[in-house]
Amino acid sequence: MELLESLQWRYATKKMNGEKIPQDKLDRILQATKLAPSSYGLTPYKVIVVESEELKEGLKNAAYGQTQLTDSSQVLVFATWDTITEGSVDHFIETVANERGITTDLLQDYGSTIKGTLNFMSEDQKITWAQKQAYIGLGFALVAAATEGVDSTPMEGFNPLLVDEVLNLKEMGLKSVVLLPLGYRDTDNDYLVNLKKVRWSDNDFFITK
Amino acid sequence: MELLESLQWRYATKKMNGEKIPQDKLDRILQATKLAPSSYGLTPYKVIVVESEELKEGLKNAAYGQTQLTDSSQVLVFATWDTITEGSVDHFIETVANERGITTDLLQDYGSTIKGTLNFMSEDQKITWAQKQAYIGLGFALVAAATEGVDSTPMEGFNPLLVDEVLNLKEMGLKSVVLLPLGYRDTDNDYLVNLKKVRWSDNDFFITK
Repeated sequence: MELLESLQWRYATKKMNGEKIPQDKLDRILQATKLAPSSYGLTPYKVIVVESEELKEGLKNAAYGQTQLTDSSQVLVFATWDTITEGSVDHFIETVANERGITTDLLQDYGSTIKGTLNFMSEDQKITWAQKQAYIGLGFALVAAATEGVDSTPMEGFNPLLVDEVLNLKEMGLKSVVLLPLGYRDTDNDYLVNLKKVRWSDNDFFITK
Repeated sequence: MELLESLQWRYATKKMNGEKIPQDKLDRILQATKLAPSSYGLTPYKVIVVESEELKEGLKNAAYGQTQLTDSSQVLVFATWDTITEGSVDHFIETVANERGITTDLLQDYGSTIKGTLNFMSEDQKITWAQKQAYIGLGFALVAAATEGVDSTPMEGFNPLLVDEVLNLKEMGLKSVVLLPLGYRDTDNDYLVNLKKVRWSDNDFFITK
């Protein structure tokens, strides 16, 4: 299927049928998500892949009972680092140096630039910035799932403190940002499946200059 | 090319060669961007497609001289609505009703839910929320460009007030959020083209529960 057809096919699934996603499809969706770019490449977030039925039940309770959370195959929880320290930048620079087979000395300016940018931000601004990077990852996950014929439902409607508690995110230095149940549509019981997808017209959405 | 190969191929291009993107490829990238989901489907942002050489020069000046802005074929400027009013929600509800061939009465609860959510947000929170939605669109644009073999460079490093001025965004009730030059890599002159793409290891990035 062409990309645009896949994107037309996808929709925010309201009712899933509990079917499991084959492992190879899930792996490709996760790898596509990890390939999302981020500012400086720092990628200040993680993806929690929730498979446990008990934890999915906990997520549902933290998200006003939305049934996709328990009827999904997996739930991806995008969670940002709760602080971005100079130490985490150093760890990133070491990772880049290792991967490229060079010494960290050669990346000193790069590290300083990142730290300089962060120094200009308040703690709140850092969190917002990290959240935006996570949303690029969310975009990649949504497209990748659609190209695999896997349904998904991006969800902002949940209590983040409760989700953090269910998954022990605080202990891991993380904060939940957005949820993405992955699974398969229950065609017979999803009111949204046959409704026309609505977007702004090209005239409303694009401005050519 | 498979999706993962396309995503491995893409990188934040540092030097572009000025070549133009065929119109059909550009159109598919734009349509994929417009198909990005957003909270409630509201899509509180627009995409400005900048083709004018003079305006691209202005963008470069507002972005610390980054040459991709003038060596690109087009620059996509993601810009959020500067306020999200009850009127804009009503306009959205009318659009959905028209597209689905129903009366707005049937969408009254939907409209009230959106307004209710917005009422809980400060002006700053609304802007952050709108920016996050724009970043999903950015993710879709990045993936779509890669699948078309088109290079791109997501850019946060610019002065948003200057960009808004160059494009007269204030007059249109918009605020620039992120830039995405589209074009083709200048392989001989881009230091980054042959460097290994670095991401966190699966162990560092994913947590399975």
